[in-house]
Amino acid sequence: MEHELETELTLSGPPPHPEALEPLVAQVAKDAIQRTVGQRGTATVLRSALDGLTLKVTFGADGARPHQTLLAFARRLGEELGRKERIGVRGFRATRYRVKFTVEPPPAKPITLPLPHTLTLDGTTAVLELTDLSEEALRDNWMDRAVALVQEKARKQAYEGKEQYWALLTQSPKREHPFQGDPTEEMIRRNWVRSGPTKGKWFLGPRAAHLLRTMERIARTEVLEPLGFVEVVQPHHDSFDILLKTGHLEGLPGEFYYVAEPKTRDPAAWESFTDTVKITRHVPEEKLAQLVAPPSAISCYAQCPTIYWWLSGRTLPLEGLPLRIYDRTAISNRYESGGRHGLERVDEFHRIEPVYIGAPEQLVALREKLLDRYRHVFDQVMELEWRTAWVTPFYMQQSGGVGVEDAQERVKGTIDFEAYLPYRGTREGSEWLEFQNLSIVGDKYTKAFTIRTQRGELWSGCSGIGLERWLTAFLAQKGLDPEHWPEGFRRYAGDVPPNIDFL
Amino acid sequence: MEHELETELTLSGPPPHPEALEPLVAQVAKDAIQRTVGQRGTATVLRSALDGLTLKVTFGADGARPHQTLLAFARRLGEELGRKERIGVRGFRATRYRVKFTVEPPPAKPITLPLPHTLTLDGTTAVLELTDLSEEALRDNWMDRAVALVQEKARKQAYEGKEQYWALLTQSPKREHPFQGDPTEEMIRRNWVRSGPTKGKWFLGPRAAHLLRTMERIARTEVLEPLGFVEVVQPHHDSFDILLKTGHLEGLPGEFYYVAEPKTRDPAAWESFTDTVKITRHVPEEKLAQLVAPPSAISCYAQCPTIYWWLSGRTLPLEGLPLRIYDRTAISNRYESGGRHGLERVDEFHRIEPVYIGAPEQLVALREKLLDRYRHVFDQVMELEWRTAWVTPFYMQQSGGVGVEDAQERVKGTIDFEAYLPYRGTREGSEWLEFQNLSIVGDKYTKAFTIRTQRGELWSGCSGIGLERWLTAFLAQKGLDPEHWPEGFRRYAGDVPPNIDFL
Repeated sequence: MEHELETELTLSGPPPHPEALEPLVAQVAKDAIQRTVGQRGTATVLRSALDGLTLKVTFGADGARPHQTLLAFARRLGEELGRKERIGVRGFRATRYRVKFTVEPPPAKPITLPLPHTLTLDGTTAVLELTDLSEEALRDNWMDRAVALVQEKARKQAYEGKEQYWALLTQSPKREHPFQGDPTEEMIRRNWVRSGPTKGKWFLGPRAAHLLRTMERIARTEVLEPLGFVEVVQPHHDSFDILLKTGHLEGLPGEFYYVAEPKTRDPAAWESFTDTVKITRHVPEEKLAQLVAPPSAISCYAQCPTIYWWLSGRTLPLEGLPLRIYDRTAISNRYESGGRHGLERVDEFHRIEPVYIGAPEQLVALREKLLDRYRHVFDQVMELEWRTAWVTPFYMQQSGGVGVEDAQERVKGTIDFEAYLPYRGTREGSEWLEFQNLSIVGDKYTKAFTIRTQRGELWSGCSGIGLERWLTAFLAQKGLDPEHWPEGFRRYAGDVPPNIDFL
Repeated sequence: MEHELETELTLSGPPPHPEALEPLVAQVAKDAIQRTVGQRGTATVLRSALDGLTLKVTFGADGARPHQTLLAFARRLGEELGRKERIGVRGFRATRYRVKFTVEPPPAKPITLPLPHTLTLDGTTAVLELTDLSEEALRDNWMDRAVALVQEKARKQAYEGKEQYWALLTQSPKREHPFQGDPTEEMIRRNWVRSGPTKGKWFLGPRAAHLLRTMERIARTEVLEPLGFVEVVQPHHDSFDILLKTGHLEGLPGEFYYVAEPKTRDPAAWESFTDTVKITRHVPEEKLAQLVAPPSAISCYAQCPTIYWWLSGRTLPLEGLPLRIYDRTAISNRYESGGRHGLERVDEFHRIEPVYIGAPEQLVALREKLLDRYRHVFDQVMELEWRTAWVTPFYMQQSGGVGVEDAQERVKGTIDFEAYLPYRGTREGSEWLEFQNLSIVGDKYTKAFTIRTQRGELWSGCSGIGLERWLTAFLAQKGLDPEHWPEGFRRYAGDVPPNIDFL
């Protein structure tokens, strides 16, 4: 990569000995280049000139990032000027920062960036020029991230329209299914569930609630407890800070339910709002907008980010690895928009999320044990027709995780569990329901949250046990009548409470 | 109450026989008055005149509400004009609506209203004049609600600064307390809990999570199951519609966490936002504000509103009463602002909320049984030092529920359970912790949600079992070491998992 960086440093006063400035700049730049570039490439000062209190310096570099050199240069120059000339460096900015790099495959469509720039593309060669970068933007590596984003967008164009990577792993025996209906429709008909007061959310009456809790009990008793997982209770609001670290905020912001705090709790500030509600029985939207702060968090999307946050900055003792914990308290929300269907695809769902942290080989071994326990539950307790597939989820393709090529090794990556839903059509012609997954994500999150152990690599992974999905998969195959339920499941369900009848 | 209502009705065309209009107006008004006022008071047409297409009519009334008369008058006049003159009534409004009523006690401070009005006060006599009321405002009884609001504000001024009504009911024996510390501080010190990533929320590690679940198990096994309560699973977002019906939205809007949906799920619409996050690693607030819709719901504040919603419009069979259900899934949020302290006063908490609906005498009997089971838990299982008090909560004082005077009968109202916290000071000199409550609310919510039975009154009530409060009350008296825990509690707790140690 070739870089050219035009900068302006503002001095605190006119240099008493202007003639001494040029050799000082040359010397400080040489030191800075040596310390920041080293053997990794070459860098030079292409031009430097003083104009009033503004020192203009242009760095060229090949294979090294000149804004790093600039940071070292500005700090050192300030020190030297202070010592020798009793003036300082007030600040600096880049008027122009140009970089030439490779983009593969060459993008077919225009690429946009949300900051002042020009981008020219010639085959696989890109030249990106950012203008007017603040000191903060330079310190914060905006150029590096802008280059990565251009490259990501080019890759994404190439993937566009292609299916998610999917490869069948295992398949259960075929089974006879006593029920062919849509389980949600049937539950609505019997008053087991009612479509909720807000989008894509459901109210489960006593029978449906009992079955959801039965699924939870099976997962804990048959999978989590035998493998030594212990429960934690996590907050159900995810802060923006956490989602910035995991990458969720850049990947999925259109799927979040946002949470906003009131600006104040003072009843006097709310009086006009509450009076209006009392008189009109309507919510005055404009008054409300003035009293509520901008969103600062989201309703839980996935549980693992906050679990990683809990462990952030900690060093885990080797003898406690692999760490095995789970949360079943935070309620998950996804804004599903047009994709909602029954209890299968909802905006609110209840999930147990086991998270595991340990050495890579520990996680691979644990995955085998988890697969074994899940297999036992789906084959022996619930007697489902199901299969597993190796997939690369969107967030791993998109946010700097493993690519499809890594996924081929099948160490880091995700296994999806899918159930056949008879009401959707034939086994071959219909879409099966993803009702469970299991991932090993490598060191992406342990690094992002600075979770360490005494020695060796520390990887992590998680598995999403979606209770509504378990319930729907089961009811879609077995139906709502207990006489068609397998003996193993009936034992767990115990006495199903009668539903509440309405006249 | 004396009313005067000046209205303007807009005709669809000039009356072909203007001379016939006056007697028609008089006749229709007479009918309308008869039907809407009856024996409850008197009403007359004070003036009427036609000006172009505008028919101006002024109603006077004493003891009756002339806007009801106006609605009947306008509908009937339209019918008659259509039949006889082939013209209609396009619409109507009130230019001025004046009412004289009594306010007790006479307010000492000015009273404001959020709509165009004048309000004059002379001792206990108030004259309120609203101007320019739309047809919708008239249909929707804004004047009645404005009068009620003025009266409520006068009462509130009188209560201001006074304590909530509180009367001791029962008191447990005094006990020796092996622990004198602040349990949250001690849990932080031992890494049992970590203060969460957003305000007033906590992450519970394995030991604390286990104890919270132990509290849940005790409540279900010792209280709810023996009394025949069955579980439901409710959504954890409360819609504005529901909160308008319960009155929560007018009572407590500064304590809610608001929920806002994305305006779209389309990644293209979010691209500039996600690109900015990728380059800057900060959330661009203005871009986000443009992509998120105004708040339309809140994170659960109390569970019962959505339970009532679930039953709205239903007729419950008599033989199923009292209906006994509970939710333990929705997570409760309160914006506590300055009042936060440890796990005792938090912005997020986990609560079991039993709700009961039945005849008044059934609920009074059920309350005795609940009190008995709670007493057993606090005396025999947890061995707490606690007391109960009869209180009138703010929302009942404020939103048209029972007043303090009704509470004296102690049928409708709330019982608070309070625990002594040794670390706060002496029994007499320190504030005890409210860790539980139990209410009978009469027919307020069954009426608001149109929940019926075949015959007789249908009342409801609920009880809030705050698991963090149970936990804090227990640990504040017994401490964190199991050897000081009562035998009955230790049986429920079973094997407490080891905490996760960090280096």
